[in-house]
Amino acid sequence: MGSLGSYTYNDSISTLTIGKVITCKAAVAYGPGQPLVVEEIRVDPPQRMEVRIRVLFTSICHTDLSAWLGENEAQRVYPRILGHEASGLVESVGEGVKDLEVGDHVVPIFNGECQKCGHCKSEKTNLCEKFRVNPLKSTMRSDGKCRFWTKDGRPVYHFLNTSTFSEYTVLDSACAVKIDANAPLEKMTLLSCGVSTGLGAVWNTADVAVGETLAVFGLGAVGLAVVEGARARGASRIIGVDINSDKRIKGLAIGITDFINPKELDKPVHEKIREMTGGGVHYSFECAGNLDVLREAFLSTHDGWGLTVILGIHPTPRLLPLHPMELFDGRRMVGSVFGDFKGKSQLPHFANQCIQGVVKLDEFITHEMPFSKINEALKLLIEGKSLRCLLHL
Amino acid sequence: MGSLGSYTYNDSISTLTIGKVITCKAAVAYGPGQPLVVEEIRVDPPQRMEVRIRVLFTSICHTDLSAWLGENEAQRVYPRILGHEASGLVESVGEGVKDLEVGDHVVPIFNGECQKCGHCKSEKTNLCEKFRVNPLKSTMRSDGKCRFWTKDGRPVYHFLNTSTFSEYTVLDSACAVKIDANAPLEKMTLLSCGVSTGLGAVWNTADVAVGETLAVFGLGAVGLAVVEGARARGASRIIGVDINSDKRIKGLAIGITDFINPKELDKPVHEKIREMTGGGVHYSFECAGNLDVLREAFLSTHDGWGLTVILGIHPTPRLLPLHPMELFDGRRMVGSVFGDFKGKSQLPHFANQCIQGVVKLDEFITHEMPFSKINEALKLLIEGKSLRCLLHL
Ligand SMILES: [Zn+2]
Ligand SMILES: [Zn+2]
Ligand SMILES: [Zn+2]
Ligand SMILES: [Zn+2]
Repeated sequence: MGSLGSYTYNDSISTLTIGKVITCKAAVAYGPGQPLVVEEIRVDPPQRMEVRIRVLFTSICHTDLSAWLGENEAQRVYPRILGHEASGLVESVGEGVKDLEVGDHVVPIFNGECQKCGHCKSEKTNLCEKFRVNPLKSTMRSDGKCRFWTKDGRPVYHFLNTSTFSEYTVLDSACAVKIDANAPLEKMTLLSCGVSTGLGAVWNTADVAVGETLAVFGLGAVGLAVVEGARARGASRIIGVDINSDKRIKGLAIGITDFINPKELDKPVHEKIREMTGGGVHYSFECAGNLDVLREAFLSTHDGWGLTVILGIHPTPRLLPLHPMELFDGRRMVGSVFGDFKGKSQLPHFANQCIQGVVKLDEFITHEMPFSKINEALKLLIEGKSLRCLLHL
Repeated sequence: MGSLGSYTYNDSISTLTIGKVITCKAAVAYGPGQPLVVEEIRVDPPQRMEVRIRVLFTSICHTDLSAWLGENEAQRVYPRILGHEASGLVESVGEGVKDLEVGDHVVPIFNGECQKCGHCKSEKTNLCEKFRVNPLKSTMRSDGKCRFWTKDGRPVYHFLNTSTFSEYTVLDSACAVKIDANAPLEKMTLLSCGVSTGLGAVWNTADVAVGETLAVFGLGAVGLAVVEGARARGASRIIGVDINSDKRIKGLAIGITDFINPKELDKPVHEKIREMTGGGVHYSFECAGNLDVLREAFLSTHDGWGLTVILGIHPTPRLLPLHPMELFDGRRMVGSVFGDFKGKSQLPHFANQCIQGVVKLDEFITHEMPFSKINEALKLLIEGKSLRCLLHL
């Protein structure tokens, strides 16, 4: 593990660039699995209802990895700027933007919230009609064009409404959340994706109550955020499940009460968990992106009221490994996007809870390095050595 | 359709039989698909926590048909008394029974409620640990024995905790619900299964609110009970879907606002329903027991908040026709057993709502005949000519 230095950054912003094209550094993907090229690009000013952000910190999540590797052919659009976990400052705002100002501390969100559409007005969903997560989208919504250009004038494509592997990026204002300037900006990066996804799944999707029990399958950043959310809620039993026993230590540091390595068992995990909990846990969270794991997670819950929350991305063509009659035992399964957080409305409060210490984020950033070493950071994640590596831009 | 006469019955009960074996008529199944034999059997007195019921009315549901045909090999246990929709009077009670008395009007329930176990005490489920529906159970729980005997002394097996194709039957007291003596007993038969299942799915499982929209796939008795429940709740749009256009008339009489025959469409049903409802209904109810229909039902709901409730029995070995990533669109799917009613606790109130006219049951009993003609009644159901045929015992 790399050592964690003290984070310092300059949160003042120049107004000299407003309305102008900015030339800055970005890490550009030119092809599947090819090392990102850190080079100068040009960034257009924000258009109507858009904002331009000075990215100060960014980190890498598995969704970036998957896009970088081009696992989904439809995502192979190059050149492209990946990245969706970040934090920074508003450099300028486009026409019509009322809720953000130059200098605001912001966190980009890949699952935007316009706050005006039928979905945004419904209490039942955080999937905005216009700006919800869309892994196939690669240009801005308003005009279908790019705001990034290579130095020789070719367009550079966007990614997940965010494209944070760049010193400056342009977002729809629906995809930028203003947070308290007192919140530690470097840790707020975590709220862009992994931590919000895991913790929100516990707080919003499952709504875990004091004394309830759960099992978490896969102890990466999202799974550990589930653990942190459950600890904060006062869950009585938090069972961590991972095929890598090294994950036990981090899990214990955050709050698991039990650890299971399925490879070390002589029976299916769900049988073990049912034995440990008098019939099964109240909730299970699948953060592995594997259908066999998903089935174990489902069967680990108690009949009558068990709820399994799917957080993992499942790139397989296989269907859900469930028989319809199995749903008559009262177990349920739901998907959760961005932890069911409505980003613009709810993340500011979440950031405050981090300031107050309700939520602890100390364990999630395991490495940090300058932005220029982004390919090294990618490698750490691929090798399972980092949870989150914070890149300083 | 047969004509509906006026129902009359004698609700007085003799106490001369208490503690004795009763000889009475029952319809006995001797093999898969073989005509039921209406013959004399002997019925033991109720044991501890059991009750013996004088069945006055019974009707036939598809689950009886399936068991009669022996569709599931594990269910082929003979001789056996089928039947689970009924109403009648308590003839006698076993030791320890406190909540039922001789002469009480009762409705048997296949999904019992002991009111003492962890499941019964939880608000989240109606699946009693001891007496929940179990299609493979064929004897009494307390001693694993039968209470029915052929005249030559062979045991006759039980079915679904109820076995109502008999003038007298023995139930665990957890499976007999006392209802108001003023409720029309002949219609209360419907509360034993189909009507409770469909209506409860709307009221309890989905909790449909005034002005919401739904689609019902399959307009048999359960599907029409969904329609009745939705009408009573004030749903604004109730779309009935059936491949038999004759179902339209009954559907309209109860409360559908639209009817779709998928065979008459040039596109998938879900596309049509999405067009009709601005993106999909709030809820869909699958009452057909067909996986392709289930998928259409799922896709007919609105993204972000759509809920599909499975009511149909799916005897296929095929798995759920859903990809895990499809759950990330915010559509959910759950199973519902007995409409999520806790039978002993909640059916008495439901019976009162029928008395008050909140729920209308006039359309469900399409035929009636003496118990001796039970094989004729089976035929009507198989041919799709009856919704419910009431047999008078
Ligand atoms: Zn992510
Ligand atoms: Zn919106
Ligand atoms: Zn119980
Ligand atoms: Zn039934």
